[in-house]
Amino acid sequence: MTYCVGLLVDRGLVFMSDTRTNAGIDNISVVSKMKTWSVPGERFLCLLSAGNLATTQSTVSLLEERSVAPADREPAILNQPSMFQTAKLIGDTLREVISYTSPSGQKADGRFSASFVLGGQIKGGRPRLFMIYPEGNFIEAGADNPFFQIGEHKYGRPIIIRTYDAGMALEEVAKLLLVSFDSTIRSNLSVGLPIDLQFYEADSFMPGYRHRFDQRDPYYQLISEGWSDSLKAAFDQLPAFERTADVEA
Amino acid sequence: MTYCVGLLVDRGLVFMSDTRTNAGIDNISVVSKMKTWSVPGERFLCLLSAGNLATTQSTVSLLEERSVAPADREPAILNQPSMFQTAKLIGDTLREVISYTSPSGQKADGRFSASFVLGGQIKGGRPRLFMIYPEGNFIEAGADNPFFQIGEHKYGRPIIIRTYDAGMALEEVAKLLLVSFDSTIRSNLSVGLPIDLQFYEADSFMPGYRHRFDQRDPYYQLISEGWSDSLKAAFDQLPAFERTADVEA
Repeated sequence: MTYCVGLLVDRGLVFMSDTRTNAGIDNISVVSKMKTWSVPGERFLCLLSAGNLATTQSTVSLLEERSVAPADREPAILNQPSMFQTAKLIGDTLREVISYTSPSGQKADGRFSASFVLGGQIKGGRPRLFMIYPEGNFIEAGADNPFFQIGEHKYGRPIIIRTYDAGMALEEVAKLLLVSFDSTIRSNLSVGLPIDLQFYEADSFMPGYRHRFDQRDPYYQLISEGWSDSLKAAFDQLPAFERTADVEA
Repeated sequence: MTYCVGLLVDRGLVFMSDTRTNAGIDNISVVSKMKTWSVPGERFLCLLSAGNLATTQSTVSLLEERSVAPADREPAILNQPSMFQTAKLIGDTLREVISYTSPSGQKADGRFSASFVLGGQIKGGRPRLFMIYPEGNFIEAGADNPFFQIGEHKYGRPIIIRTYDAGMALEEVAKLLLVSFDSTIRSNLSVGLPIDLQFYEADSFMPGYRHRFDQRDPYYQLISEGWSDSLKAAFDQLPAFERTADVEA
């Protein structure tokens, strides 16, 4: 499993991904699931991946390789006119990899399946965020669904739903996502530290702040330990439940 | 899907279950997933069920029917010497139902699968809590794992893990479980109101307080609306994330 989130706010985009990959619980290793590309002043792209590692790596490698000499090899990840076309290229490449690997052609639910979250901005457009399915099609984030999660999304979802606000600073989003990741890591062994963080500031057209949180990261420890206490305090402030006499058994 | 929780504290047991059952998202209805039996002064049992409704209803009906005339029909749910034997009886009955329904015999992962949480107390023993698997085997709660969830357990798990304390009053547990249920209901359409609540006070050997929360329940509304605000306040109290200069991209 994996846990990755891409989140859209007024000030830009925030990406976070874990780094645990496993072929069984006795065979784990650390692999970054976050890949960025940039042509400073023109575009910035960040891609998060979940699913079969061979599939996601092949897809990223194909996207990378084709960008080495864009004049020779089309289509190139850094040569698309819009975020929409970029998402389409990634979807097409993903479908191509899955088709090639699956003996009987494209199989979304198969063991070679994978999905991506793509975010970024290209000059002339606004910051955009997409979720790309194994079938190669994709959906875009908007005001009603401002974030996408891939992988083990359930444990960490309630806190995002209840706390998200489009006016948040990127640093606040980082804090929110750390809480979401910590809740997930406590419940699912297949999601693990270190955690990669990437900011993108709207209209900057260049990579923003990037950080890797490991087990010894002081801020991660503050959040991980502090959140339980804060949550308990918040819980205590809720009105107490009282038995109502009319429904006593 | 379904969401049920049984939770053990020093003062007794608390059970909570949703009531939504569905055969597709366009075919939903309300069915209680909580069943209690009691011989006041001697024993109290509460059974929560998740999975195929035909399987869980058959199992409960068999357990019920066999308890009508315990002298004639053994084994009887109200006639077991211990909670362990009661759990074994339920597991055996569940396995019998699944075996009967599945053409090729017992199948745990099949579409006739179901699981139960059983809690209660029988004179001479302490309050005990079990999780019963479709295979008919079961595990018991203890200090390290004081609660069991069945059905859609992921969304509502982090809050229980972070807030549970063995010294909690039953009313506090009810509040905690309502938060957990509300988080789940907001994320999964297949879990729905009303919610059934059952208390069991240790060494009372009789049913405790019981309540059904529906959409208009004022306390449920207080929790559902208040929790988002409390959570945001708790979140704001966590130390802010600050970019560290050495890892700027």
